[in-house]
Amino acid sequence: MRIGVLTGGGDCPGLNAVIRSVVRTAGAHYGSEVVGFRDGWRGLLENRSTPLDVAAVDGLLTRGGTTLGSARVAPEKLHAGIDEMKCTLDEHGIDVLIPIGGEGTLTAAHLLSEAGVPVVGIPKTIDNDIDGTDLTFGFDTAVSIATELIDRLHTTAESHQRVLLVEVMGRHAGWIALHAGLAAGAHLTLVPEEPFDVDEVVRLVCERFARGDSHVIGVVAEGAEPLPGQMAFRRGGVDEFGHRRFTGVTQQLGEELERRTGKEVRATVLGHVQRGGTPTSFDRVLATRFGLHATIAAHEGRTGQMVALRGTEIELVPLAHAVARLKTVTAERLAETRAFTG
Amino acid sequence: MRIGVLTGGGDCPGLNAVIRSVVRTAGAHYGSEVVGFRDGWRGLLENRSTPLDVAAVDGLLTRGGTTLGSARVAPEKLHAGIDEMKCTLDEHGIDVLIPIGGEGTLTAAHLLSEAGVPVVGIPKTIDNDIDGTDLTFGFDTAVSIATELIDRLHTTAESHQRVLLVEVMGRHAGWIALHAGLAAGAHLTLVPEEPFDVDEVVRLVCERFARGDSHVIGVVAEGAEPLPGQMAFRRGGVDEFGHRRFTGVTQQLGEELERRTGKEVRATVLGHVQRGGTPTSFDRVLATRFGLHATIAAHEGRTGQMVALRGTEIELVPLAHAVARLKTVTAERLAETRAFTG
Amino acid sequence: MRIGVLTGGGDCPGLNAVIRSVVRTAGAHYGSEVVGFRDGWRGLLENRSTPLDVAAVDGLLTRGGTTLGSARVAPEKLHAGIDEMKCTLDEHGIDVLIPIGGEGTLTAAHLLSEAGVPVVGIPKTIDNDIDGTDLTFGFDTAVSIATELIDRLHTTAESHQRVLLVEVMGRHAGWIALHAGLAAGAHLTLVPEEPFDVDEVVRLVCERFARGDSHVIGVVAEGAEPLPGQMAFRRGGVDEFGHRRFTGVTQQLGEELERRTGKEVRATVLGHVQRGGTPTSFDRVLATRFGLHATIAAHEGRTGQMVALRGTEIELVPLAHAVARLKTVTAERLAETRAFTG
Amino acid sequence: MRIGVLTGGGDCPGLNAVIRSVVRTAGAHYGSEVVGFRDGWRGLLENRSTPLDVAAVDGLLTRGGTTLGSARVAPEKLHAGIDEMKCTLDEHGIDVLIPIGGEGTLTAAHLLSEAGVPVVGIPKTIDNDIDGTDLTFGFDTAVSIATELIDRLHTTAESHQRVLLVEVMGRHAGWIALHAGLAAGAHLTLVPEEPFDVDEVVRLVCERFARGDSHVIGVVAEGAEPLPGQMAFRRGGVDEFGHRRFTGVTQQLGEELERRTGKEVRATVLGHVQRGGTPTSFDRVLATRFGLHATIAAHEGRTGQMVALRGTEIELVPLAHAVARLKTVTAERLAETRAFTG
Repeated sequence: MRIGVLTGGGDCPGLNAVIRSVVRTAGAHYGSEVVGFRDGWRGLLENRSTPLDVAAVDGLLTRGGTTLGSARVAPEKLHAGIDEMKCTLDEHGIDVLIPIGGEGTLTAAHLLSEAGVPVVGIPKTIDNDIDGTDLTFGFDTAVSIATELIDRLHTTAESHQRVLLVEVMGRHAGWIALHAGLAAGAHLTLVPEEPFDVDEVVRLVCERFARGDSHVIGVVAEGAEPLPGQMAFRRGGVDEFGHRRFTGVTQQLGEELERRTGKEVRATVLGHVQRGGTPTSFDRVLATRFGLHATIAAHEGRTGQMVALRGTEIELVPLAHAVARLKTVTAERLAETRAFTG
Repeated sequence: MRIGVLTGGGDCPGLNAVIRSVVRTAGAHYGSEVVGFRDGWRGLLENRSTPLDVAAVDGLLTRGGTTLGSARVAPEKLHAGIDEMKCTLDEHGIDVLIPIGGEGTLTAAHLLSEAGVPVVGIPKTIDNDIDGTDLTFGFDTAVSIATELIDRLHTTAESHQRVLLVEVMGRHAGWIALHAGLAAGAHLTLVPEEPFDVDEVVRLVCERFARGDSHVIGVVAEGAEPLPGQMAFRRGGVDEFGHRRFTGVTQQLGEELERRTGKEVRATVLGHVQRGGTPTSFDRVLATRFGLHATIAAHEGRTGQMVALRGTEIELVPLAHAVARLKTVTAERLAETRAFTG
Repeated sequence: MRIGVLTGGGDCPGLNAVIRSVVRTAGAHYGSEVVGFRDGWRGLLENRSTPLDVAAVDGLLTRGGTTLGSARVAPEKLHAGIDEMKCTLDEHGIDVLIPIGGEGTLTAAHLLSEAGVPVVGIPKTIDNDIDGTDLTFGFDTAVSIATELIDRLHTTAESHQRVLLVEVMGRHAGWIALHAGLAAGAHLTLVPEEPFDVDEVVRLVCERFARGDSHVIGVVAEGAEPLPGQMAFRRGGVDEFGHRRFTGVTQQLGEELERRTGKEVRATVLGHVQRGGTPTSFDRVLATRFGLHATIAAHEGRTGQMVALRGTEIELVPLAHAVARLKTVTAERLAETRAFTG
Repeated sequence: MRIGVLTGGGDCPGLNAVIRSVVRTAGAHYGSEVVGFRDGWRGLLENRSTPLDVAAVDGLLTRGGTTLGSARVAPEKLHAGIDEMKCTLDEHGIDVLIPIGGEGTLTAAHLLSEAGVPVVGIPKTIDNDIDGTDLTFGFDTAVSIATELIDRLHTTAESHQRVLLVEVMGRHAGWIALHAGLAAGAHLTLVPEEPFDVDEVVRLVCERFARGDSHVIGVVAEGAEPLPGQMAFRRGGVDEFGHRRFTGVTQQLGEELERRTGKEVRATVLGHVQRGGTPTSFDRVLATRFGLHATIAAHEGRTGQMVALRGTEIELVPLAHAVARLKTVTAERLAETRAFTG
């Protein structure tokens, strides 16, 4: 059998570990061959590929990034290019395609699947907002990095009696903010799922200092927003890889807080360091298991599906289900943070 | 309401985070008070305690170890001491006891529960061998540390053409070895659940060098054993905290391999570094959620239970179920490693 | 003898380790007492202090920040307050004052020394720009953090064919940029000591992509500037702790590069994470030795001096020498980077 | 010009960074070519080599180990093989040889130099025991790893009231023990330079527990020994890469302490994790500068020398001087630890 692999969307620790896992499983379990398509869907559209054997994936387990490259392709180009992509797959004799990516990539995978291409998707997002799976690889690494950096900011805030706001990734879902906030003992966590009330944030800051606490650490998801009308809030321009081109919510909130509380406020935007570099052991195991089970599913003809973590098991869920909606932070999970904030 | 807390058994990253979580939840959600008993069950037997308020748990989230101390108590002492323990609980007006610990601690908790004491257990073990929960806190930290250290050993093994055997914790269950082996790209993983065949290990080592591979990394759980009769194997004396007092399996296997393959073999025993220090972000979140939900269960009268991770949710399982058997590595999970070893 | 201690200026990993070292040396070697003044010079001006004994410094070796607090005091206030400060020192019976801080703090220390107060200074700056000492504590930690984070950015840049600019601290001296750039394999390092030519930077970026290199990593000290007239450069507002309030040089350069090269450029400002959290082992040793030798000098009456690292030894240099000029990156050290950039 | 490079002796973080630096400097500054000899001196004896260009050293800056391999060669073989080695150098047209290694490698380098081969040595040892240079690369990484691991052991020792002895590398010099002990706040540091008195160690342990301290952390260099006649001490068999084949000093001391103090004592041997994996930023900078300046010296004809760190500068010292004696821990440096132990 011949398997095709590609990686789409933004960077995510564990992509290379998945590629290695697919290649090793295909080779060791089934004697199958693997072809990698370069730069995401563009590789299929433009017929750019590379053979992947065990030697080619040596050392990839621990390496961040994706050896296949990635690129953005506009959805309309994908729609228009289905025939070219099928043509490329035919030319390479690909029996099953394993695309690794986030919402956009999996939506395209679903499209191809509907068009008759056997596909097994592998969910990837540091934001953890893909439905149908407990977790995605990359998320644990992002939370780990954010947590380590917030740990570092704590002592400075404490020694210098500061309010420190830390912006983490998460434009539509606040999972990184929720977990890093819990893990690093933030006094305030703001997520996209629930608009924040600036007056309440001001009150929290004032109350902490009033009762003698030395500092405030706030974790802010990049997609968090104040209640309508507050702070004269203006959403910054954000490109599709999460890069802020203008002053974002955290900087604006910081200025508002400094003005209204009279405290020194600092805003730190963690940015791309959250999505690069070697994966945590958790993400290496998850990425490896995803690659393994996707390859098994491909060989067993269980296509049109996506691998998913459910409890301790890797299962298959229909692609249609996975892309139907974003998995956002629930009210119950937000309520859990209340005993630990303020 | 008054809550009692104690920590039993060996050290585990996240114990302090659980204590903090119980205290903050009890205070912030319910206005309840918390009493900590010192040195595990001994604190109950000898009536040694300390009040725990929010100030007392400040900074505990990130700190390894347990501020309450821990100690070993022989099971027969616990059986004989139930009345003293109930007496101590009465004296402090404890409504619900929250013991945090591994198999031994939870068995004692079950005993007390059967004797009429309202108890909510919190499972703790770096070994991840408690049944009824997907994972326990401490495990992710142990795997992370082991993985980072094995990453370091890889380059030395490669440059110096060595066989490096790394012993990780796990006397009865091979979860740390399984995950660290997958995460660090070990060529060989030996666990207690499946006796290893020394002849096969020798063959694997020889084959790797024969086909030009530069090195071999093997991960060995401390409880792994060869097939009966092989290697003249003699189990080393191991105390209940996992400390090896004599030469263990890894050293014996290393000597056997060196003798039979003619390669340089080194054995490294990671030891206690796996169970100390600051928890990973994953374990901090899990420990915090365990403490939160145990405290909620205590206040809602759902006792005789243990908190457990099931998928993404924290649920309750009967203590009786949790202590009925050890959760060991399944054949399916071992099979998963096959594409990545050799 | 009675020793006074205070910490001034911005946060720096190792401050607490110095305080601990002074207290332990004074106690163990000399049976002397130590008084800590709170919030830098403000503690002397406003007579706010705390006794420091061995118990008070327990656990400080590994903790970031400063348990004594720090604050900014305007130089003119210090000049005007010399008599109040002497008065406070008299009231506490302080025989020698040990101020720990950067250029500002040491200048004030020199002032007090000239006014007859026995002083032994301890140089502190993550920027490493204090003259007379090979290195200052905090610098190694800052470089380590920056390097780890740039390591993470490498794989993303490579996979996504990006230009990534990373802004590190260093308003007047480029030591962090120089060392982190060398350590992380940056293709471009920009420092305050040498205005950069935007045309050359554009050329470097284009040449790298032209010859098939996949990415560019640039390390930019926050105080770097283009040649006069280039880029319509506007210096951002920067407060005295290095916080950028407006768009800084890195963002402006990024926009210029994106416009002129057509490549995707991302700018990341590492910010305060460089100056918080636990010190590296190198900085813990240096901070401990600085505290030790300053306390010995205080007891031996060698005052009006600052401790300094010279080779492997801790020596004393006159405060007057230390504050005479900033230690900036030399042309020779910049030349060293040339074989490794481009 | 043609430069030869080889790496000898045990593994050391930074070896690859030196190789990369030599190749990049030779290429970028001088347009010279570099030939790598495989497996240390054996590559010269057996004429096994590989050309090294800029592409060949891509990615080596951050990678542990040595891409050239290393091997042990008996000194008498080296003496007997000088003509073969010169022959190999001639055959490859090598103008200057740059051997990177510890005492053994540099002694051989000196031998070759005396025999008329232009040589520039680069000192390498995690033990930091080469004379003539302030520091060697690899040492900072070894101390960092040891310190991080001892940090982890602290909390366990504290929670469980233990004596924890940690064995670090250092057969003849106690630099790693000295620095890791200072950096991690050890209560006891034992080095090869000063035989320890077991009675005093017993007293220290008892006194700490007597005055209410909860634990003892001891750092023991593998080459430490008790006073003659104490503990019935038997030196374990140690091979030349520092691997203990029998029970070493730390285990023997642990058993003695447990017997005499009645406290629980645990011994951990850190082993090879201290010498593998990615170098710290400090070691990457030092390794890079060593490679740079050795290559410059080679091109300027300043041979028969070794590069050395002196303060902040890289200088040259005669090979004869470097190999004349081991650099061991001085009495002054040991005295510095006294305020911090006990």
